[in-house]
Amino acid sequence: MKADYVIKHAWVYMTFRQCFEKRDVAVSGERIFEVSPEISSETQYMIDGRGMYLIPGLVDIHMHIESSMTYPKEFSPFGLKAGTTTVVADAHEIANVFGMEGIRTFMEQKTDLDIFYAIPSSVPATSIELETSGYSIGEQETRELLEDSRVLCLGEVMNFKELVPEDGSDTKILRLIRMCKETRGRDIRLEGHCPKISGRDLNQFIFTGVDADHTQQTAESVLEKTDLGMFLELQKKSLTNPVVETVCKNRLYENVALVTDDTMPDQLLKGQLNQVIALAVKTGMPVEQAIYCSTYTPARRMRLDDRGMIGPGKLADLVLLRNLEDFRPAAVFKSGKLVYQDPEENRFKNASAKKVGENPQSFSFPSHFYHSVHCVQADPSLFTLKAEKPGSGVLANVIKINSFGTATDAMQREIPVRNGRICWQEAGLCLAVVFERYGKNGNMAFGLVEGAFQKQGAAATTWSHDSHNLLVLGNSPEDMALAQNRVLALQGGYVVCSGNKVQAEARLNVGGIISDGPLNQLAEDLGKVREAMAELGYLNNNEIMSMSTLALPVSPSLKITDYGMLEVRSQRPVPLIAKYLP
Amino acid sequence: MKADYVIKHAWVYMTFRQCFEKRDVAVSGERIFEVSPEISSETQYMIDGRGMYLIPGLVDIHMHIESSMTYPKEFSPFGLKAGTTTVVADAHEIANVFGMEGIRTFMEQKTDLDIFYAIPSSVPATSIELETSGYSIGEQETRELLEDSRVLCLGEVMNFKELVPEDGSDTKILRLIRMCKETRGRDIRLEGHCPKISGRDLNQFIFTGVDADHTQQTAESVLEKTDLGMFLELQKKSLTNPVVETVCKNRLYENVALVTDDTMPDQLLKGQLNQVIALAVKTGMPVEQAIYCSTYTPARRMRLDDRGMIGPGKLADLVLLRNLEDFRPAAVFKSGKLVYQDPEENRFKNASAKKVGENPQSFSFPSHFYHSVHCVQADPSLFTLKAEKPGSGVLANVIKINSFGTATDAMQREIPVRNGRICWQEAGLCLAVVFERYGKNGNMAFGLVEGAFQKQGAAATTWSHDSHNLLVLGNSPEDMALAQNRVLALQGGYVVCSGNKVQAEARLNVGGIISDGPLNQLAEDLGKVREAMAELGYLNNNEIMSMSTLALPVSPSLKITDYGMLEVRSQRPVPLIAKYLP
Repeated sequence: MKADYVIKHAWVYMTFRQCFEKRDVAVSGERIFEVSPEISSETQYMIDGRGMYLIPGLVDIHMHIESSMTYPKEFSPFGLKAGTTTVVADAHEIANVFGMEGIRTFMEQKTDLDIFYAIPSSVPATSIELETSGYSIGEQETRELLEDSRVLCLGEVMNFKELVPEDGSDTKILRLIRMCKETRGRDIRLEGHCPKISGRDLNQFIFTGVDADHTQQTAESVLEKTDLGMFLELQKKSLTNPVVETVCKNRLYENVALVTDDTMPDQLLKGQLNQVIALAVKTGMPVEQAIYCSTYTPARRMRLDDRGMIGPGKLADLVLLRNLEDFRPAAVFKSGKLVYQDPEENRFKNASAKKVGENPQSFSFPSHFYHSVHCVQADPSLFTLKAEKPGSGVLANVIKINSFGTATDAMQREIPVRNGRICWQEAGLCLAVVFERYGKNGNMAFGLVEGAFQKQGAAATTWSHDSHNLLVLGNSPEDMALAQNRVLALQGGYVVCSGNKVQAEARLNVGGIISDGPLNQLAEDLGKVREAMAELGYLNNNEIMSMSTLALPVSPSLKITDYGMLEVRSQRPVPLIAKYLP
Repeated sequence: MKADYVIKHAWVYMTFRQCFEKRDVAVSGERIFEVSPEISSETQYMIDGRGMYLIPGLVDIHMHIESSMTYPKEFSPFGLKAGTTTVVADAHEIANVFGMEGIRTFMEQKTDLDIFYAIPSSVPATSIELETSGYSIGEQETRELLEDSRVLCLGEVMNFKELVPEDGSDTKILRLIRMCKETRGRDIRLEGHCPKISGRDLNQFIFTGVDADHTQQTAESVLEKTDLGMFLELQKKSLTNPVVETVCKNRLYENVALVTDDTMPDQLLKGQLNQVIALAVKTGMPVEQAIYCSTYTPARRMRLDDRGMIGPGKLADLVLLRNLEDFRPAAVFKSGKLVYQDPEENRFKNASAKKVGENPQSFSFPSHFYHSVHCVQADPSLFTLKAEKPGSGVLANVIKINSFGTATDAMQREIPVRNGRICWQEAGLCLAVVFERYGKNGNMAFGLVEGAFQKQGAAATTWSHDSHNLLVLGNSPEDMALAQNRVLALQGGYVVCSGNKVQAEARLNVGGIISDGPLNQLAEDLGKVREAMAELGYLNNNEIMSMSTLALPVSPSLKITDYGMLEVRSQRPVPLIAKYLP
């Protein structure tokens, strides 16, 4: 067999020693053919890798393409540009909206990037008694997905109460887990989502076989989960100094993968998993280990034996780096094919240097995907809270947003009542309203939020995890109504209003959660949405994610669905009014 | 769920941190239920682990039960006594003799020890043109085995020439590999055997997907194979100071498993994988890492996610140790059940303290398994070499045994010729004769050996890897004939003769390779065989293995089959006489 090309004289990453050595790498077809100190090959084509670093293509095993509000074909070139050559996508957002049909539209898209899939285990995130989603993923859908060899795992099992039922009953998730094991035996991974679970609860969680977690970690949770055998997937919010120090001090690199989970469209323009690596390194992880945790460890977790390292027989998924600081690839090869090169780089003359994003990838979804938001037109009068009993005020249960991350706290606040109205605005709060948007039951639920907008204004979105009902948040009824109606007119999107004007908007016309337009445009629009939210005083490291997860009833502590506010751990409803004050 | 018992206050092995912590471990049924600093359980039964170490059951992923010349049921209690709770057995010896029928008789035996299986990939080790075995394992047999979920891998692929054919042809082994991948996808491992292969050859070997090796390593081979992505299984002969130092210095614990490969019956009485651990520690591997490499790493290699560590949901395969020096278990639990305790230990009052080996396990093989050695009666005159041409002597090709390991060297020696006879005895050599023993073709092949018996005598055996033809080795034709005839009378065994007397013998009445009697007796007999061989001056760390592998044509460098001597690397025949001297 002859090599098609040889990358010469680069510093090549030696996976098992976690170091670099000067090597030549020969590629034949899709695969690496030989790795040797010197290959004097008969091939015509040599790539000069002198002074560069060659690492395996990055492997991102926990992510949602919908978090970039786009679709596989458009995502692919941006992932590749960042050096990511393989992802395991959990399409649970599109599944919440369109069920199996949504998942199928993703899986049928051909991409240079290798996209494997997780079975969305928790669609809806809780149950149809607690939230309304477009579709459920149940046993029939799971059985169908298990037949596809691109399906590698059961995706983030979220609902502790269903996984470890107090009464020992046989729940849907337990049946899905059994089905996975019976159908696939050893060839399936069970991925979990267990924030703030520890002690006996954590033992019971892991006992079910669900043995990975990608939620926010602390040094203590890393140690406890690791000792109990849990695999940890660290995303940016987990990469704090104490967590990274714990990982490094205990050399947990075999048991830790870096993942993106959610990359917003505007972030995706800047990078993907490479940005998580850069952050890990900045936080103190040695670069050789950060590479390991984003190539070999994740590939092994997902049983992708054909990648994650540079060795004979492995896929020629290769990333050339000019340095080990910024992690911006000079060139990326996927299955032997040059799929990206830095426009400033001219070493790879045989390749076309087209700019990523210049030729957006088109894909047509079924026509009803573009008409999927069915709920009432808003009127400012909707956003009023009436007191049902007389009195001077109420003690209200309030969702408190934190300035970092998506976890909220449950608070109680005294709010004055005047003329039978609960004057939440005077208490400096925002009103959150969730409208069921699938045309199923017309649910409408109210919650109060502290720490959202400090100035007068509102935002509305159909991109509200995981059920993607229409969420309206604000402190100005006029702006709330305007935002809501604009989202309806767009058939999905993210809209920010103030002063009775639309300040920014991003259109998400497919299912209300993704855009079929070019990512560059979407990212620009979404950047403006983010700015507009910040301008209104929304204080969070990711304003959009923070607002959107207000409706995610598996993320601690107090959240709101179209059925009302919910205490996440107990899955018990929480009334808006705790007490009427005399 | 309630725990059946709790092991309290032991130092429990934390797999991912490779250290010990004081923990309580609760067991429910087959599985570990909880691991916590303090379990105040409702269970009635507590085991006091104070002052003891609790580690996961040992996992031996490369071994042959036939190397202990016994069968699964009899092997099981001895493995468990050593702390080994899981093995992956490659039944390629019984497969060489009886084909699928032989493998099936192994797989149908119920044992407390978990026995998984490798598909014998190389039966016969080379091809029917180069050696005669009882049976071949081909595509049909492989297909049948792949259907059994206990089959985890394609066992040691040995034949470089067939795996990497010079003419690029499609060989049997390449077809078997394809079948494995097509049938099982990611859920199958391809295990290799590639001694002394390096450089471009090694790249080509690994390119086929065969990415593990358990043969004798050097520091250099460890580094080269590791860098190319090969998984290493280290048996005793690889545990030299340079190898262990290389593993430790580069922290290759994720990529290295300790294995036994071949444990002779007399060794098995003393221990099994625990002895390899003890040697690794003695050679410089930290004990915490040696435990890792014999529990978690091997379990992961074989995708046995349900074991290899102590955590909730894992099988309760547990070994209690009094110290971390001798690795003699105080108690062993398999799938929650106490299967062994040291007779001197009385902590576990609820368990019967029966002595391992006291109640040998019986199993009846099909009757023709006891009548399987079909070859000619010997006569001393058989063991004569005639010169075909006139002259003073010959230059002969000679197999040189080394004092360590099973690899031989190819030498040439001048031997005088007198009266038409080649006087090999005068040159201080031994004669090796291989008789085809399946009644297929009556082959008989002659070779000369240096470094075997120094005194007058002979040995004969049907336990000659891998085809198990009848091998007779000696420097006294009378003793050779006597030994051969005794083996025939026993229908298989190992016999040593000198002074025209049988000095020692071990009966291997099932297929000529295993005994259906108690292991204790067999071990005693075999110990005597070993002593008798040493007494005759056979210089090797394992006399029996050294002699038996003279017939193994995939172990370097020069070996002999029933077709004659063979250069292993090229698989070319080597004539006994290189040149007639004038």
